[in-house]
Amino acid sequence: MASLTSSLTARIGPDRVLTAREDILPYGFDGTAILRQLPACVVFPRGAADVSAVLKIAREHRAPVVTRGSGTGLSGGSVPLPGAVVLCLVKMDRILEVDTANLTLRAEAGAITQKIYDAADAVGLFYPPDPGSMKISTIGGNVAENSGGLRGLKYGVTRDYVMGLEVVLADGSICWLGSKCVKDVAGYNLRDLFIGSEGTLGVVTQVLLKLLPKPAARQTLLATYTAMDAAAETVSAIIAAKIIPCTLEFLDQKTLRCVEDFAKVGLPRDAAAILLVETDGHPSAVADEADAIEKLCRAHGASSVRRAATAAEAAQLATARRSAFSALARLRPTTILEDVTVPRSELAGMIRAVEVIALKHDLNIATFGHFGDGNLHPTILTDERDAAEMRRVELALADIVTATLERGGTITGEHGVGLAKKPFLKRQLGDASYDLLRLVKKSLDPDGFLNPGKIFD
Amino acid sequence: MASLTSSLTARIGPDRVLTAREDILPYGFDGTAILRQLPACVVFPRGAADVSAVLKIAREHRAPVVTRGSGTGLSGGSVPLPGAVVLCLVKMDRILEVDTANLTLRAEAGAITQKIYDAADAVGLFYPPDPGSMKISTIGGNVAENSGGLRGLKYGVTRDYVMGLEVVLADGSICWLGSKCVKDVAGYNLRDLFIGSEGTLGVVTQVLLKLLPKPAARQTLLATYTAMDAAAETVSAIIAAKIIPCTLEFLDQKTLRCVEDFAKVGLPRDAAAILLVETDGHPSAVADEADAIEKLCRAHGASSVRRAATAAEAAQLATARRSAFSALARLRPTTILEDVTVPRSELAGMIRAVEVIALKHDLNIATFGHFGDGNLHPTILTDERDAAEMRRVELALADIVTATLERGGTITGEHGVGLAKKPFLKRQLGDASYDLLRLVKKSLDPDGFLNPGKIFD
Repeated sequence: MASLTSSLTARIGPDRVLTAREDILPYGFDGTAILRQLPACVVFPRGAADVSAVLKIAREHRAPVVTRGSGTGLSGGSVPLPGAVVLCLVKMDRILEVDTANLTLRAEAGAITQKIYDAADAVGLFYPPDPGSMKISTIGGNVAENSGGLRGLKYGVTRDYVMGLEVVLADGSICWLGSKCVKDVAGYNLRDLFIGSEGTLGVVTQVLLKLLPKPAARQTLLATYTAMDAAAETVSAIIAAKIIPCTLEFLDQKTLRCVEDFAKVGLPRDAAAILLVETDGHPSAVADEADAIEKLCRAHGASSVRRAATAAEAAQLATARRSAFSALARLRPTTILEDVTVPRSELAGMIRAVEVIALKHDLNIATFGHFGDGNLHPTILTDERDAAEMRRVELALADIVTATLERGGTITGEHGVGLAKKPFLKRQLGDASYDLLRLVKKSLDPDGFLNPGKIFD
Repeated sequence: MASLTSSLTARIGPDRVLTAREDILPYGFDGTAILRQLPACVVFPRGAADVSAVLKIAREHRAPVVTRGSGTGLSGGSVPLPGAVVLCLVKMDRILEVDTANLTLRAEAGAITQKIYDAADAVGLFYPPDPGSMKISTIGGNVAENSGGLRGLKYGVTRDYVMGLEVVLADGSICWLGSKCVKDVAGYNLRDLFIGSEGTLGVVTQVLLKLLPKPAARQTLLATYTAMDAAAETVSAIIAAKIIPCTLEFLDQKTLRCVEDFAKVGLPRDAAAILLVETDGHPSAVADEADAIEKLCRAHGASSVRRAATAAEAAQLATARRSAFSALARLRPTTILEDVTVPRSELAGMIRAVEVIALKHDLNIATFGHFGDGNLHPTILTDERDAAEMRRVELALADIVTATLERGGTITGEHGVGLAKKPFLKRQLGDASYDLLRLVKKSLDPDGFLNPGKIFD
């Protein structure tokens, strides 16, 4: 039998298979701190037929296959196992169709999220999911992780916009799940099973997305607080007032200072916390909602509320928020980004719990996140070379998970389980649900060669 | 070994197990024409523990289990196999929690859809899915079939409001899938696998639903057409104008005459077709959208556009539309309700195809449906005692399916596969997707005793 890499090279082409150490090194890690491992080779398929061929060859050679796009993942989902074939879909990046009659867009899995947004925008349509990494992340990666973003409160996450998927299964067969029909109940919903399955059940090669009409107006507000609790209470008050803004983002003092140093957009450095709120839709609805939100912010202790005067100022504020992770990452060598999520009613308690945990373990934790979704990103600023501190980090992470689960929360709101959250999954799901997950994995990937070691062992 | 029914009676209680022929007769059919078969017994469990016990006993006795609620299904999904245990959840009908801080509602599977709507409405919240049978259908049945309704265009279907499920698996284990977190990517999405699985993978015993703020305003319009094509073109024009109304319903002449005779709300009996359009949301947005919709209707050939002057008049129009099936069912002994769905751009062609098929097979077919969703209900008015006509009905149904699949449509938009659409499923899905469905079924129900013979053989 020919070797794995020579079989792949013969089938896919020498220009599409990387094997030299210096070439494959960049494919040994993703956006997650600490985790890295070297694959056997990296393959760049042209489409589903190539992917099918790669899966068959890899299975024959008992080699694990790890699918990836741009590698911006934050749970280690695309970190390869040693000896793995990395299936990198970035060269399958075409937008195949924008259908304005049916409000759909079809693209290859390697298409960049931002380009999909732009292609919709160019015809007056709107693709809402906007993960932090959307300028470089691929839509296939977004589907694999069911990525969220800043507009999740009103518009939901990637899953809510996937109408169909082309998937290559473990046996190399290619199937299409879903359709352009906005309602379709013909058989089990397997499309949704693949969304968020982190490359462990099959390889997504094409995506059919739902688009929306572009909102006619939007307004961004920045509310400043002298106490974190007040910001959390404002969020509850907005929801209780039956207002669902598009965006409801939170930055604590550490984060907002970092972001201000980095982006220089005039954030109030002395504030204990800020809320960034955006409402969109019909101009009158936006005006009314913005007024109501401003009143609620002030009534719940905001020391100031500033409205973006122009679209440019609003975009600047959103960009500042988007830069939170990068800004924090400059402070110390290692940045560990948490992704716990709680029911919205538990936000204030969860924020306080994170503060207590930081003090208890003597760690530097900055917190920001999608407050409207209950999705927090406590970010531990540390140094992986400091073994003693890293032990405290481990303990703190476990404490954060415990505090989350006690509040009916989830260990991951939008980053996925991957390697990072694997140790905690069973505790959240309980035995019966966890066993069911394993059963599904075993059925769809009986040889266990699709992204092994992710989600569970 | 004790008999099946005596084991069930001993475990669940004699007052909760029906075995007499006259008692079980009403559980031998659902809302689907023609299909009926007699079960062995009917069991009314109190909760997940009872359901678990029933599944274990049935499996031990190799008896099939068919779960049902009110039996309003339209694809034969709850028609029992001979000798089956019917698990009837209508006595598990409590609304367990309305959480206004997190905008969620938790209910037992047997809770009536209308009661869920009312419980949300009572606190200023909104549960959008409104299947035609919502006054008597159960939420568990809605989940099993992933029911749609009249508001699907803007608000989606049952799936879009299910945050969590309590499910009893084939082995009797009880698991909870999902949470109150609006974002949760911890492990595979198995919740969505059970939604729409028609009782073939497990038994849903509790449902956690997402609620929305109640829209502040709504406006209903009735547009009258002298040609069916013009109505279809109006729908395309509304979508192309980037307006997504809440409701966009179509009734052809046969249907609207029947409905008018039945409901007497002043529908124009001479019209070739009518569109019933509802827009909801912020009052200014509703006013603007209603104006734009009226203009588009007139520009695309509506001979008149009437606006509901009061909420009562709007409700009356909606009720009239809801009565379409009942009204048509009065005309002839047997009413066969189709549920094909096409991409919206294919609507006009599909409507014409149904007309041609009716002529070809000399059948009386009335068509109404959720035009905005591309979801048609061509309704064959026939008589099951007329063998010759029933053969023509079979041929017409096959022709309708062919016309649907040629247009990239689906054999079922909201009623499910059940028994009625089983013969056509493989043609729609293709071999690879169909085999994947069977694989999932075999994994989750290895003994094949959960609603056997539904979806596939």
